[in-house]
Amino acid sequence: MHEFNLIEQYFKWDNAPETVALSVGDDAAILNIPVNQQLVTSVDTLISGVHFPEDTSAHAIGHKALAVNLSDLAAMGAIPKWFTLALTLPEINQSWLEAFSSGLKSIADEHNCFLIGGDTTRGPLSITIQVMGLVESGKALLRGGAKVGDKIYVTGTLGDAAFGLRNKDNDFCKQRLDYPSPRLLESGFIKAFASSCLDISDGLLQDLSHILKASSVGAELDLSLLPLSNELRRINNVEAINYALSGGDDYELLFTIPSDKQALFHQKLSKSGGVYPYIGTITQEKETIMDEKGHKLISKGYNHFYG
Amino acid sequence: MHEFNLIEQYFKWDNAPETVALSVGDDAAILNIPVNQQLVTSVDTLISGVHFPEDTSAHAIGHKALAVNLSDLAAMGAIPKWFTLALTLPEINQSWLEAFSSGLKSIADEHNCFLIGGDTTRGPLSITIQVMGLVESGKALLRGGAKVGDKIYVTGTLGDAAFGLRNKDNDFCKQRLDYPSPRLLESGFIKAFASSCLDISDGLLQDLSHILKASSVGAELDLSLLPLSNELRRINNVEAINYALSGGDDYELLFTIPSDKQALFHQKLSKSGGVYPYIGTITQEKETIMDEKGHKLISKGYNHFYG
Repeated sequence: MHEFNLIEQYFKWDNAPETVALSVGDDAAILNIPVNQQLVTSVDTLISGVHFPEDTSAHAIGHKALAVNLSDLAAMGAIPKWFTLALTLPEINQSWLEAFSSGLKSIADEHNCFLIGGDTTRGPLSITIQVMGLVESGKALLRGGAKVGDKIYVTGTLGDAAFGLRNKDNDFCKQRLDYPSPRLLESGFIKAFASSCLDISDGLLQDLSHILKASSVGAELDLSLLPLSNELRRINNVEAINYALSGGDDYELLFTIPSDKQALFHQKLSKSGGVYPYIGTITQEKETIMDEKGHKLISKGYNHFYG
Repeated sequence: MHEFNLIEQYFKWDNAPETVALSVGDDAAILNIPVNQQLVTSVDTLISGVHFPEDTSAHAIGHKALAVNLSDLAAMGAIPKWFTLALTLPEINQSWLEAFSSGLKSIADEHNCFLIGGDTTRGPLSITIQVMGLVESGKALLRGGAKVGDKIYVTGTLGDAAFGLRNKDNDFCKQRLDYPSPRLLESGFIKAFASSCLDISDGLLQDLSHILKASSVGAELDLSLLPLSNELRRINNVEAINYALSGGDDYELLFTIPSDKQALFHQKLSKSGGVYPYIGTITQEKETIMDEKGHKLISKGYNHFYG
């Protein structure tokens, strides 16, 4: 089978949105960008055995490869529109490709994100997706806006995916690892209130430290308030908190709300039926994270080139 | 060394153009797209041992990874603006990274294309670049516009890179293989005249077949007119012509000019001092390529998943 057939067969999708002037099949894709919108774009590579266990299903790999990129757009308050796929495969396995393509298409359709092009090459399994989205000019959520006194929140429970990586018989946590949910709806709600935001991919402490660095502030976390799933509440509490602090692959949003917006945020939040756990406060001491008892917390977050 | 330091140290460039609202250092980059312009984007992965010999210098890899993507924009008549880099490395080798980064920056600066973000991961060496550029709305050069009677041209000599792959002691051809020149200046000139265009990456016959398919036409090539470098003129003529027809990695533009525009095209061309070799004519018989003696030519072009 030729590379060209591979793209035509598995990755040339029908019903391109109007913004796509030209998709798969020429030297490049052409997109129409509406006025008063900025283009927001992010790229992530997933390597087999590094970013997902080698026995992960092709369907889950397809889902996760796009999900982690959509999560970056959610962190920016952007709306996903298009993506490209650079797929490196050791061999052509039709059933693998069908399952991968189906997992990918399913989450793409859910978030109205259209595949506009890509490249297929032969080599060790690796997937690079670049996602593109739009945000109203000047309205993106950045990392650098947190101020002393802002409250720190997350969109959901932490540590589940890292626990699932080590405990594959735990269906709930394995699902959280293999099928992360990009928090795009949540991002749309948060956007009107947040002073800073990012998505937690390398562990709460490590990702929080990026907000602290960009904003030149510190943080105090109340460890008793860290949101834990029922699954993590069943294990040793210290272990569970370590998963929540340093486990990777959560893909929850971490964000701060200024004190003058908190009342309205909570009022709108309770109307919408949402619950975003409050976990701490922004403090003055630069790039320092303390717990509620005054202990300094050190990031042990996941890093591809660590150690 | 951390992944974050790697990006900061080697891939965070100063002097971002005004179109870059946010570059390396947040969850995503933010770009300002001028009105009445379309976004043109293309992605290509280079794998060590597949897209370049394993002993290729890091400087050449940095050059080539961006050059092949810029070549796709040239093929569309678009002007390069930004790119992302997804780099997978087996290990952190500082001198390799310095040379790679220098080769990349050099060609990026030459074409005013700015690195806006990326991802670094650990694994077998592979480089995925997505380039983004702009074209005046509706003015992109496509593959599907060739008409019967149009003349076929290329921007330069063919087969050199493929010859250089097999004859590494030939400095000229090795240079053509390792340091392809994206034909962006040429693209700007051709744009006003061409009915179709693409870049030759997989060999003349294979890439010409894409124009023929998209345009529902055929072609007659005059093999005696194929542009050959002095290096290829020194070898056996049949062999040289095979390199020119089926060798990969040329990165010359292949384009067609309608008969009513040929006079003006040649007039402007001779004023500019340029020479684009005429190599054949578009014919009626769909997706068929004949030579000047009436023999059918079959593509033996390079394909990553061929055979």
